Amino acid sequence: MTRPHSKRFYKRAEARPAAGLWLYGLHAVKAALANPHRKVSRAVLSERAAAEVGPKLLGRVRHELTDPEAVGKLLPPGSVHQGVALACEPLPRRDLADVLVPSGRRRIVLVLDQISDPHNTGAILRSAAAFGVAAVIVQDRHAPPESGALAKAASGALDIVPYVQVVNIARALDELAELGFWRVALTGDGEQNLKDAASGGDVAIVLGSEGTGLRRLVRERCDVSATIPIDAQMESLNVSNAAAIALYEIRRE
Amino acid sequence: MTRPHSKRFYKRAEARPAAGLWLYGLHAVKAALANPHRKVSRAVLSERAAAEVGPKLLGRVRHELTDPEAVGKLLPPGSVHQGVALACEPLPRRDLADVLVPSGRRRIVLVLDQISDPHNTGAILRSAAAFGVAAVIVQDRHAPPESGALAKAASGALDIVPYVQVVNIARALDELAELGFWRVALTGDGEQNLKDAASGGDVAIVLGSEGTGLRRLVRERCDVSATIPIDAQMESLNVSNAAAIALYEIRRE
Repeated sequence: MTRPHSKRFYKRAEARPAAGLWLYGLHAVKAALANPHRKVSRAVLSERAAAEVGPKLLGRVRHELTDPEAVGKLLPPGSVHQGVALACEPLPRRDLADVLVPSGRRRIVLVLDQISDPHNTGAILRSAAAFGVAAVIVQDRHAPPESGALAKAASGALDIVPYVQVVNIARALDELAELGFWRVALTGDGEQNLKDAASGGDVAIVLGSEGTGLRRLVRERCDVSATIPIDAQMESLNVSNAAAIALYEIRRE
Repeated sequence: MTRPHSKRFYKRAEARPAAGLWLYGLHAVKAALANPHRKVSRAVLSERAAAEVGPKLLGRVRHELTDPEAVGKLLPPGSVHQGVALACEPLPRRDLADVLVPSGRRRIVLVLDQISDPHNTGAILRSAAAFGVAAVIVQDRHAPPESGALAKAASGALDIVPYVQVVNIARALDELAELGFWRVALTGDGEQNLKDAASGGDVAIVLGSEGTGLRRLVRERCDVSATIPIDAQMESLNVSNAAAIALYEIRRE
C-alpha cells in the first residue's frame, strides 16, 4: 500500500490506464477482483471502501488509500463510485462455442441487436447473472464497449456472465441453431405469447433497440417471434425490463 | 406558430418556465399534450419532431419550430430530446383515495420507499402503465420530483399513471389496507415466493431503494414479504427490473 496525498500520486492517478479502463462502484470492483480472468493493475479507494472490499480481494492488487473526492477525480463527472476505482484491462475476447458448454440446467442466452445504451446493457447483464444466463451476445460495432458505466450498471455481472462480442449477429444466430438453441425474437407484435414461445429446451432470447426494434435480417433468423402482453396505452417496455421478464418467465416453474 | 432563429427567441427560450418544467422526448411530450390535466405553456421543436407529434396535439399549445441544437440548449446537457421540448406545469397533486376508484380488473399499486433515481423511477412508471397499475405512490421528500429526466425515462407514463406523492409512506400503507389491498414487501429475503405471495385480489407491491432496501417501519406495515427467486451469484436485481417482473407475475394468468 503506497502513501496517498502526494502530488505525484494524483498526477499518476489521473492518467488513463494504458490500454485499459477504470471500473468503479463496490459491486463492480469486487466482482472484477474476484474474477481470475480479469487483469487488474491498481485500485484507488477510501478507507471505508477498503473495509467493504476486504483484505482478501485487495491482496490481489496494488492499491492506494485516499479520500472519496480523489477517487471521483479519476472518473467521468457524475460517476457513482462509492469510494473505489480499479484500473484494469478489458476481459479477453471469448468465442461463443467455448462459452456454451453443456449444463445440467436449461441453457439461456441473450442476443442484443444494436442496444447501444450502457445503462440498459448493464442492467440486462445484471439480470442475466441473476437468472443464470450462459452468455450475453452483442455485435461489437453496435454495442457499448466495456466501460466503467457498463460495469457499474451491471453491478458485478460483467465479470460473471460471458459478454460475447461477435462481428455478425445473423451468423451467431446460425451458430446457436446448430448448438440446439430455440431462437425467440422478442417484439411488440410477435406471433406467440412469450410463455408459449419459450417453453422447454435451450433458448436464445433476441432483443432489439428501443428506437428501431429488431432488424429484419435478425428477426428472420429466429424460429419464432414472441410478445410480452401489455396494455394498449403503452407502446413498449424498457428493454432491460423486457429482458428481465423474459428471463423470469423462462426460469419460472 | 412564431418565427424561430431570432436572438430574442433564444433569450426567452433559455429561461426556465416560471414555476414549471421542461419535458422532452417524443413519447413524454406527446403524452403530456394528450393529458387534459397537464397545463402546458409552450413547445419548441424541430420540423421532423412536429411531424411526429402531429397537428392535433400541437393545436393545443403555442409552439415554435427550430433546429434540434436550439432545443438542446433549453435542456440539461446530454438530454436525449429527439428534437422536442415542452414547457409545462407539474401535474396537480392527487389524493390516494381519489385515484383508487373501483375497477373491473384486479387493482395493483406500487409503493416506492426512498427510490431516488429518476431513471429507475421513470422505468417503473413505464412498466406500471404497461401493466395497468392504478397508482405509483412515493414519499414526497425522498422521491424524484417531476422532471424532464423522470418523464423521459417514463416514456409518457408520467401522464398516464397517477404519481401520488404522500407525506408518510406508513400512513399510505394503512390507507391501502383499509381500501382492501394486500400489501406485499418485495425483498431479497422474503417469507414467500412472489408468485404465492401475490395471488388473487387487489395488491400493493412495496419496493425499497437498492442501497438500503426497505425501511423496517415500512416492511412491518406489509402483510407479507416476498422474493423473486434468483441465483446466489447475484445479490439483487435492478429495482425497475424487479418491479417489472412483479407486475408481469401479477398480470400473468
